[in-house]
Amino acid sequence: MLTMQEALSRLTAYWVDQGCLTVQPMNTEVGAGTLNPATFLRVLGPEPWRVVYVEPSVRPDDSRYGENPNRIQTHTQVQVILKPEPGNAQEVYLGSLAALGIDVAAHDVRFVEDNWASPALGMWGLGWEVWLDGLEITQFTYFQQAGGVTLEPPSVEITYGIERILMALQGVRHFKDIAYAPGVSYGEVFGQPEYEMSRYYLDDADVATNRQLLDLYAGEAQRMVEAGLPVPAHSYVLKTSHAFNVLDARGAVSTSDRAAEFGRMRRLAGDVAKQWIARREELGHPLGTVAATPAAQPPAEAVDGSPGVRQLVFEIGTEELPPAEARAAREQVRRELTERLAATRLAHGEITVLATPRRIVAVVDAVADREQDHVRTVRGPKVAAAYDAAGEPTPAVRGFARSQGVELADLEQQDVNGVAHVAVVKHEAGRPAGEVLADVLAKVVTALRSAKNMRWNDPALSFTRPIRWLLALRGDEVVPFAVSTLAAGRETRVHRTAESPTVVVNSAETHLDTLRAHGIVADPDERRSEIVADAQRLAAAAGGQVDVEDERALIDQVTYLVERPTALLGRFDESYLRLPEAVLATVMRKHQRYLPVRAADGSLLPCFVAVANGDIDEDLVRAGNEAVLRARYEDAAFFYRADRDTPLDAMRDRLERLTFTDKLGSMADRAARISTLARTLANSSGLGGADRDTLGRAAELVKFDLGAQLVTEMTSLAGVMARDYAAHAGEPAAVAEAVFESELPRNTGDAVPSHVPGAVLSLADRLDLVTGMAATVGLPTGSSDPFAVRRAVLGLLAVHRTGLVPVSLTAAMADAAALQPVEVSGQVLADAAEFLTRRLEQVLVEEGHPVDRVRAVLPHADRPALADQLLHQLDELVKDERFRALVEAIQRARRIVPAGTPAGYDVADLVEPAERRLDEVVRSVAVSGPDLVAFLSAAGKVTEPVNTFFDEVYVMAEEPALRRARLGLLATVRDLGAGILDWDHLRM
Amino acid sequence: MLTMQEALSRLTAYWVDQGCLTVQPMNTEVGAGTLNPATFLRVLGPEPWRVVYVEPSVRPDDSRYGENPNRIQTHTQVQVILKPEPGNAQEVYLGSLAALGIDVAAHDVRFVEDNWASPALGMWGLGWEVWLDGLEITQFTYFQQAGGVTLEPPSVEITYGIERILMALQGVRHFKDIAYAPGVSYGEVFGQPEYEMSRYYLDDADVATNRQLLDLYAGEAQRMVEAGLPVPAHSYVLKTSHAFNVLDARGAVSTSDRAAEFGRMRRLAGDVAKQWIARREELGHPLGTVAATPAAQPPAEAVDGSPGVRQLVFEIGTEELPPAEARAAREQVRRELTERLAATRLAHGEITVLATPRRIVAVVDAVADREQDHVRTVRGPKVAAAYDAAGEPTPAVRGFARSQGVELADLEQQDVNGVAHVAVVKHEAGRPAGEVLADVLAKVVTALRSAKNMRWNDPALSFTRPIRWLLALRGDEVVPFAVSTLAAGRETRVHRTAESPTVVVNSAETHLDTLRAHGIVADPDERRSEIVADAQRLAAAAGGQVDVEDERALIDQVTYLVERPTALLGRFDESYLRLPEAVLATVMRKHQRYLPVRAADGSLLPCFVAVANGDIDEDLVRAGNEAVLRARYEDAAFFYRADRDTPLDAMRDRLERLTFTDKLGSMADRAARISTLARTLANSSGLGGADRDTLGRAAELVKFDLGAQLVTEMTSLAGVMARDYAAHAGEPAAVAEAVFESELPRNTGDAVPSHVPGAVLSLADRLDLVTGMAATVGLPTGSSDPFAVRRAVLGLLAVHRTGLVPVSLTAAMADAAALQPVEVSGQVLADAAEFLTRRLEQVLVEEGHPVDRVRAVLPHADRPALADQLLHQLDELVKDERFRALVEAIQRARRIVPAGTPAGYDVADLVEPAERRLDEVVRSVAVSGPDLVAFLSAAGKVTEPVNTFFDEVYVMAEEPALRRARLGLLATVRDLGAGILDWDHLRM
Repeated sequence: MLTMQEALSRLTAYWVDQGCLTVQPMNTEVGAGTLNPATFLRVLGPEPWRVVYVEPSVRPDDSRYGENPNRIQTHTQVQVILKPEPGNAQEVYLGSLAALGIDVAAHDVRFVEDNWASPALGMWGLGWEVWLDGLEITQFTYFQQAGGVTLEPPSVEITYGIERILMALQGVRHFKDIAYAPGVSYGEVFGQPEYEMSRYYLDDADVATNRQLLDLYAGEAQRMVEAGLPVPAHSYVLKTSHAFNVLDARGAVSTSDRAAEFGRMRRLAGDVAKQWIARREELGHPLGTVAATPAAQPPAEAVDGSPGVRQLVFEIGTEELPPAEARAAREQVRRELTERLAATRLAHGEITVLATPRRIVAVVDAVADREQDHVRTVRGPKVAAAYDAAGEPTPAVRGFARSQGVELADLEQQDVNGVAHVAVVKHEAGRPAGEVLADVLAKVVTALRSAKNMRWNDPALSFTRPIRWLLALRGDEVVPFAVSTLAAGRETRVHRTAESPTVVVNSAETHLDTLRAHGIVADPDERRSEIVADAQRLAAAAGGQVDVEDERALIDQVTYLVERPTALLGRFDESYLRLPEAVLATVMRKHQRYLPVRAADGSLLPCFVAVANGDIDEDLVRAGNEAVLRARYEDAAFFYRADRDTPLDAMRDRLERLTFTDKLGSMADRAARISTLARTLANSSGLGGADRDTLGRAAELVKFDLGAQLVTEMTSLAGVMARDYAAHAGEPAAVAEAVFESELPRNTGDAVPSHVPGAVLSLADRLDLVTGMAATVGLPTGSSDPFAVRRAVLGLLAVHRTGLVPVSLTAAMADAAALQPVEVSGQVLADAAEFLTRRLEQVLVEEGHPVDRVRAVLPHADRPALADQLLHQLDELVKDERFRALVEAIQRARRIVPAGTPAGYDVADLVEPAERRLDEVVRSVAVSGPDLVAFLSAAGKVTEPVNTFFDEVYVMAEEPALRRARLGLLATVRDLGAGILDWDHLRM
Repeated sequence: MLTMQEALSRLTAYWVDQGCLTVQPMNTEVGAGTLNPATFLRVLGPEPWRVVYVEPSVRPDDSRYGENPNRIQTHTQVQVILKPEPGNAQEVYLGSLAALGIDVAAHDVRFVEDNWASPALGMWGLGWEVWLDGLEITQFTYFQQAGGVTLEPPSVEITYGIERILMALQGVRHFKDIAYAPGVSYGEVFGQPEYEMSRYYLDDADVATNRQLLDLYAGEAQRMVEAGLPVPAHSYVLKTSHAFNVLDARGAVSTSDRAAEFGRMRRLAGDVAKQWIARREELGHPLGTVAATPAAQPPAEAVDGSPGVRQLVFEIGTEELPPAEARAAREQVRRELTERLAATRLAHGEITVLATPRRIVAVVDAVADREQDHVRTVRGPKVAAAYDAAGEPTPAVRGFARSQGVELADLEQQDVNGVAHVAVVKHEAGRPAGEVLADVLAKVVTALRSAKNMRWNDPALSFTRPIRWLLALRGDEVVPFAVSTLAAGRETRVHRTAESPTVVVNSAETHLDTLRAHGIVADPDERRSEIVADAQRLAAAAGGQVDVEDERALIDQVTYLVERPTALLGRFDESYLRLPEAVLATVMRKHQRYLPVRAADGSLLPCFVAVANGDIDEDLVRAGNEAVLRARYEDAAFFYRADRDTPLDAMRDRLERLTFTDKLGSMADRAARISTLARTLANSSGLGGADRDTLGRAAELVKFDLGAQLVTEMTSLAGVMARDYAAHAGEPAAVAEAVFESELPRNTGDAVPSHVPGAVLSLADRLDLVTGMAATVGLPTGSSDPFAVRRAVLGLLAVHRTGLVPVSLTAAMADAAALQPVEVSGQVLADAAEFLTRRLEQVLVEEGHPVDRVRAVLPHADRPALADQLLHQLDELVKDERFRALVEAIQRARRIVPAGTPAGYDVADLVEPAERRLDEVVRSVAVSGPDLVAFLSAAGKVTEPVNTFFDEVYVMAEEPALRRARLGLLATVRDLGAGILDWDHLRM
C-alpha cells in the first residue's frame, strides 16, 4: 500500500523530474501553500520559476478535535508552481496522478470550474477543482493577480489535498486511519496535535492576546514595507492572517472587523508585491526572464484548395470551459461567424455551432471556393471642375485619379442627378475561400471573450480558459491562418487519456464523425438527451425516477461537464435517509452534481445518478463516487447526530461566542433583541391565544441553530435545521415551524412565513438587522452590501405583504431602534423608512404595476400589505367607469385649487344651486379608511355634483368671499380621498 | 554534481529505509530541528520513535546580510531521531554519508567530543561533532534530558548541517554558490531572503514590538500549560524563544534579561514536557513502548581454561571518549583493577592500562590459573560456655555450629590468651582464575564513571559515552562474565571503515599485536611520540618547527582524538598571515586542533599540522582540512576587512545597541562611564604630559571594538583587535596600546597593563563593573557569577599591584559609584571594599605569603600595591634581627597596654631614668609613611630603651598618675607603627 510519506516523496520526485525546485514549508503558520513566498512572491515579475513543496496548511476554522473523519485543522498540501505556464500543465498533472499509481484512464478525472480568489491577498485566478471519481483532489489555477498586481507571465498553481487523495487510494474512512508510514497510522502521529490544536483554536486561544498579536504583526508588516523589505513584511502579513484566522475560529471576528482586516491585509500584500517586483528588477532578475511564446506562422496550405462547394469546420480547442461560459461562447461564435461571413461575398449554407467543455465547433455547410466577383464605382469631382477651359485636367481630378491609383485615361463619367461626375469603375475579383475564411476565423478567435477572462502564455489572447488549438478545414484543406501563438491545422485533441490524444482529421465533412469515433459528442443537445435517457433508465432500474423538470438547471450544467456522458447509478446507505432531505439534496446537487433519484411519491431513494466523462471503468468510478457521497453524508450525519445530542439551550449558548458586528454585540445579543422586539410587535398587533404562546417559546429559541454544527457547515440550512432540532427536542410543532419561518424568506423568490408567530419573528429579525446596520455601517448605497441589508428590507416587504402582521414598519423600526446597543437617530430612522419606500416602489414596479399607481400607494409604504391591497383595488377599479369618473372629478378639483387652499368654507357664502348641491353631497360623504372600494361606494355620489358644479359655476368669482368659498368647497372635494392615495401621481 | 535538493532527498530516503518516519519542518520559526515537536516532545516518554526531517533553522544572530561566505541566518538542518538508540547509530550514520557519495574510508571522519545543552529548554545530552576532514558536518547527541525530565529511554539525535556539507562536497567557497538544483544556485533562490531577513534581525525589527510579542507568547504558553494542552503550549514556547532571539540579535537583551527569560522558558518547557508525558500515558502510549534490552548471558566457556600462568587482557570498548575522560578512565581502571585483584588470592604480575578514544585496554602479566588455597579459623564461644556441667553442648555452641554450617563433631578447640575457645577450621580451596576474574572485571565495568555520565540503551550502566563491547581473555580463553546487556568475548572492533570492523582475538598475548595489525595503537605514549615526531618532521620539511612545549596541552588532546595518528602538513594562503596572530592561532588550536608551525624567530608560517585518524587518503584529507581552515580564515578575514573599513566612531556607535544590563544601560553608557572615571583617576594620581593626552584619546575609544564584527565572533579578541584597528585608523601607538591594555588582564595569569594610560582604563573598566553589579545584582556569593565580578576584582588587584596607578581603590569605587545610573549606597560600597579585601587576602595567601603577614598588611587592601610592597618588606625584614627586635619590643608594649589606653602622658609624671630615656627616644622618632624599611630606620632606636624600660620599670605602679603616665608612654610605643601594619596579626 502506498503510504502517505511515500506519496509525498513520489509527488515531489515527479515534479523535480519536471524541472521543479523543492523548497521547505513556510516557517510560520499559513492557511495554504499559496501563501508561502515560494508562491506568493515568486509568481510576481518576469522571472521563471518552477517549484514543488509540501505545505502543512493550518485552518483553525476546520478544527474538529480530530473527531470528524474528513476535517482537520492542519492538512497537508503539495504545492506546484509552473511559471510560465507550459501550455500542457493539465497533461503533466495527469502524469503526476499516474506517478501515484492512479490509472487515469480507468478513473473519471475531471476539471470542474472553480475560480479562486483570496481577497486578503489581492490574489485571484481561474481554474478548476480536479475531481477523481467525484472527489476533489486538486486545485488547479491559472494565477492572474497577486497583491493586486497583474501577473506577467501568469503561473499555473497545482495544489494537491494529500489526506483526501490518500484516503481514497487507501480506501479508509477516517483520516486517522491513513497509513502514514509502514506500520504507523496518521492518527498515531498527528492525532494528539489535531485534538490539542483544535482545543486551542476553538476553545482556549486567548482572544485579547490574539487581537494584540494581530495588531502587532500588522504594525511590523507596515514598518517593514516602509523599510523597503518585502520578505520580512510578507512574513508578518502571514502572521497577521493567521492571527485573524485564530480570532475567526474563536468567533471573535465581526463582519465589519473582517472587512477592515481584509482591507488592511490587502493593502499590505499589495505593497509587498510591488516592492518585491521592484527589488527583483534592481537585482537584475537573478533567475532571468521568461521569453515570450513566439508567434505562430500560418500553415503553408493553398488558400484556394478544395475546389467547389464544401463544408467548413472550425474548432476552437480549449481547456475545460465552465458550463455557462461554454454556452455563451457557443452563442458568441455563432453570432460572430454569421455576421462576419455576411460581411464577405462568400456563399455558404447553414451555420451550426456545437460545444463541449473542451471545444467550440462551428460547422458551415456549402461554402463556396471563392467570393463572388464585384463591380464598384467611385465618384470623383464634377466634370465641370475636372477640366479647365482648355480641357486640361485640374488639380482636383489629378488628385482623385492619384488617390484611386488609376491613370487619367482610365477615368469614366457618371451622371448624378443630371450632373456629370468623373468616376472610376473597379472590377473586383472575389478572393479565394481560404483567404476570406482565414480573415474571418482569426477575427472570431481574437474576439472571443467571456464574463471573466484570463491570460495564459499567449501575448494577445484572453478568454475564460486557455485556447490550445485551432482546427479549421474547408473540405480537405486547412484554412491557413494563425492567431498570435496558434496556427490553424487539421489536428484535434480527444480524451487526454486516449492512446493518441491528438487525432488528424481528413476533411471538414468527417470531423464530427472523427470526434464521435474517439468518444466525443460535440452536440450538447445530443449529450443532454443521452444524459436524460440514461438517468431515467438507471433510476427506473432502481425503482425510481429523476425529476427532469426540477433538475433542469443541473442537467444543463452536467451536459457541459462531459464530452461524452457515461451515466452511472450509485447507491448510498439507507440509513442516511434519516438526514433531512434538504441536506441530502444539497450535497448531491450542489456539491457533487449528482441527480437525486426519487420514488413515485417524490421521496428520495438511496441512490443517485452520476455522469462521468468518456470511457471509464464503471465499477471503479461508481465505487469512488459512492465513497465521496458517503464521506459527505458521514460528515453531515456526524454533525447531525452531534447537534441532536446537544440541548437547544447549549446550542443557543454558543451564540454568545459568535460576534454579530463589533458595535452590535454577539449573535446572542441579536437573538435577545429579536425576541424582545417580536413580543412588542405581537402586542402591537394584538396577538393572543395559542399563537401568543407559540411566539413566546419560539422567541426564546430564535436563531439557536446558528450554534449547530451542521448549520455552521452549511449555512443555507439555517431555519431548516432549527425546525428539525426543535421538533426532535420535543418542542411543539408550531414552535418548531415558527423558528423555521423566522428565517424566511432566505432570498428573493423564497417562501414567506405562513403563520403569524413565524411572520412576527421574521419581521423582528429583519427590523433588528436594518436599524442596527443603518445606525452603524449605514444603509447600502452602491453594489456593496456585505450585511445584506437590501435583502433584509425586501424580506420585510415580502413578509408584511402576507398580511399576517398588520403593523406599521416605520413604527416597528422605531421599536427596533430603541433596543439597539447604539443610538439610532431620528434622521437614521427617516433614511431607513425612505430606503424601504424606494425598495417597495422598485418591487411593485418590477411586478408589473404601472409606476403611477405604485407611486400613488407609496404613502402606505410602511404597511406594504395595505399598499398591496390598494394597488390591487386600483387594478380592478380602473376598469370601473364610476371609479374613473370619480377620480376624474377629484383630479379636476385638485387641478383648479391652488396649493395650500384649506378645505373649508362658509356655506352661507355659496350662492349657486350647483354649489349648494355639491356642498350637501360632499358633507354627506363618510370615508372610513384606506380602502378604495369603500371609498368609491362612499364618495361615488360626488362625481355628478362636481361635474355639474364645473359646468355651471365660475369658480374664480370677482367677489373674494365667494371665490374663497368655492375654492374651499373644491378643496374639500380634493381632500375626500386624502390619506388613501397620493393622488398627485395617479394618471388615468 | 550532487545538488542540495538531491542531497536532502537522498538523506531522507536513506533514513526512511532505516525505518524513520518523515515529517515536515515546524510551522513557526525555530533555531534548530531539536525544537520541532517531532524531537522535543517525541523523545519524552517510553514510546519508540524514528524520524527524519528537514528543518530550516533560523538564528537571527547569524545574520550577515548574505555577505559572509559561511554564515546564514536560516540554515538547513536534516534532523534524525532514533529512539531507542539502536546501539550502532554511529555505524548507521556513516552509511548516510556513503549515501551522499562520501567515501568514509578515504576521508577522515571523526567523532569529536561536543556536549550539547539548551538551558532554555532544560535539555542536554552528550555526544560529538562529527568532523569530515576537520569540518564539522553533524552534531551527534545522546539526549539525556528534555524539559528537565530524564529521558527513558535515551534517544540519539543526528543533526546534519546541510549547507556546510554541500559546500564541501561541491567545493564552493560561498554558500550562495551551492548548486541548489540543476542550474539554480542557492543564492539565486535564497539570496534575497537572506539579505532582507538579516536586515530585519540586525537593523529593522522593532524592539518594542518584539518585546510585546515575547510577553504575549509566554503568556499564551502559560495559559495553555494551565489548560493542559502541551502541544499549543510548546508552539508558544517556540515563539517565545524566537522573539527572544530577535531581541538578542538587535542587542536588546541584557544579561539579566537573558537569565530571566531562560528561566521562564525553562519552566514552561518543563511543564510542557511533564504534560506531554502524562497525556501520552492517558492515551495508552499509542505507539507502544520500548522494550528493555535483554540482559546478556555470560559465554559458556570453562572458567578454568588456559592452565598455567598466562596474560590477561581486558578491553572495554566504547564510543569515542572525550580526551580528558579517556585519560581519567585509564587511571580509574588501573586503580580499580589493582585494588580488586589485590583483594583476591590470584597471583599476577604487572598491570598496564592503555587507552584510545574507543577502548581502555588493561594488560595483566602472569596471571595464575587458580587462587592460592587458604586455611581460615573461626573462633566460637569459650569452651567453658560451650558445654554444661554434664558435658552437653549448650545452646550457644549449637548456634555457633549451625551458623557455620558444621556438625558439633567438627568443632575444634583453640587457645586465645590461654583461654580455650571452640573453633571451626575451614580449608578453602582457591577458585579458578576465570571465576575470580569474572567477578573482578564485572565490577570494574560496573564501577566505571566519569565527571559527566550518560545513559544509553543499557538499563544498568552509566558512563561518559556508551560502552559497546567487552573483550576479556586470559591466555586463550574468554573470561566468562556478563554485565547487564554486555557479555565478555574475544571480539574487538577496529576502525569502522575497515573491511571487517570486528576482529577475533586468539589469545591475550596477541591482543595488542592484533590491534596494531589493524591500525590501532593502544598505547597513548606511543601515539604521542609519533605525533610529535611526525609533526616535527613535517614542520621541518616546511622550514619551520612546532613548539612542542607551548603546544603540550593540545598535543595531549590530539593524542586522544585518534587511534592511530596520521599527521599531515597543510598549508594556507600567505595572505592570511596579515591577520593578527591571535586570530590565526586561536582558530588553529581551539577550533581545529591543528598544530601551528613557526619559523625560527617564532613567527607563524603559512602551514599547520593536522592529525588524522588511521589510514586515509592523505591528499583528500589534506585538501579538506585546508578548505576548512581557509573558510575559517576567510570568515575572519571578511570580518577583519569589514572592521578595518569601518571608522572607529561607527564601531563605537554600535555600542548603543548592545545592552550591558537592563539597569545599567547600554555598552555605550558603560564606555562613557569608564571614560569619565579614567579621567578622574588620572587627576587623582596627578597624571600629566604625554600620558595624559594618550589617556584622553584612549578613553574616548575605550571598548569600541565590542562593535567590531571579528570581536562579536571571537570575544576573546577584545582589546587585541582594538589595538589593531586603532593603529590601522592612524591613532598613536600609545593610544592603541592603551585601548588594548584596558582589557588586561583577561583572566587569571594574563598579562597586566605596562603603561599608565592602559592601567588607568583597566581600573576604570573594572571599577565600573564592580560597583554597578554590587548595586544591582549584588556581589557574587556562591559559584554563580554570571557577570564575572570576581574576575573583575582580581583584575583590579593585579593592575593596582603594577604600581602604575597609586590610587585608593575604595576612593575610586566611590567615584565609580557616583557615575552609576542607579544609587549605590554606602553599605554597598563598604561591602564591595570588604569583598576586595577578602580577595586580596586570598590571592596573597595563595601566592605563598604567611597568613599572619598577609593579614597584617590588609589595612592597605585599598592600595594593593602598597600591601604588596609592605609584604615584600616584611619578607625581607623578618630576616633582620633589628627588625625582629623592634617588633618584639612593640608587641611587648601592645600586650601590656590595656585596650583603649590613649597614647599620651605627662612627661613630668615620669620618674625613673629608664622611662625618661624611653620618652626621649620615642619623642625623637619621626615615622613618615607606610614603609617598613623607613620605619625600621626611624624607630629602630626604640628597641633598646623599650627593653631597658621593661627590665627596670614596674609599669603598674601603685600611684595612679605614675601608672597612667607609664601606660601612656607604652601606648605611644604601641602606636609607633600604627597605620603601617595591623600589628595584631603579625606573628614573629
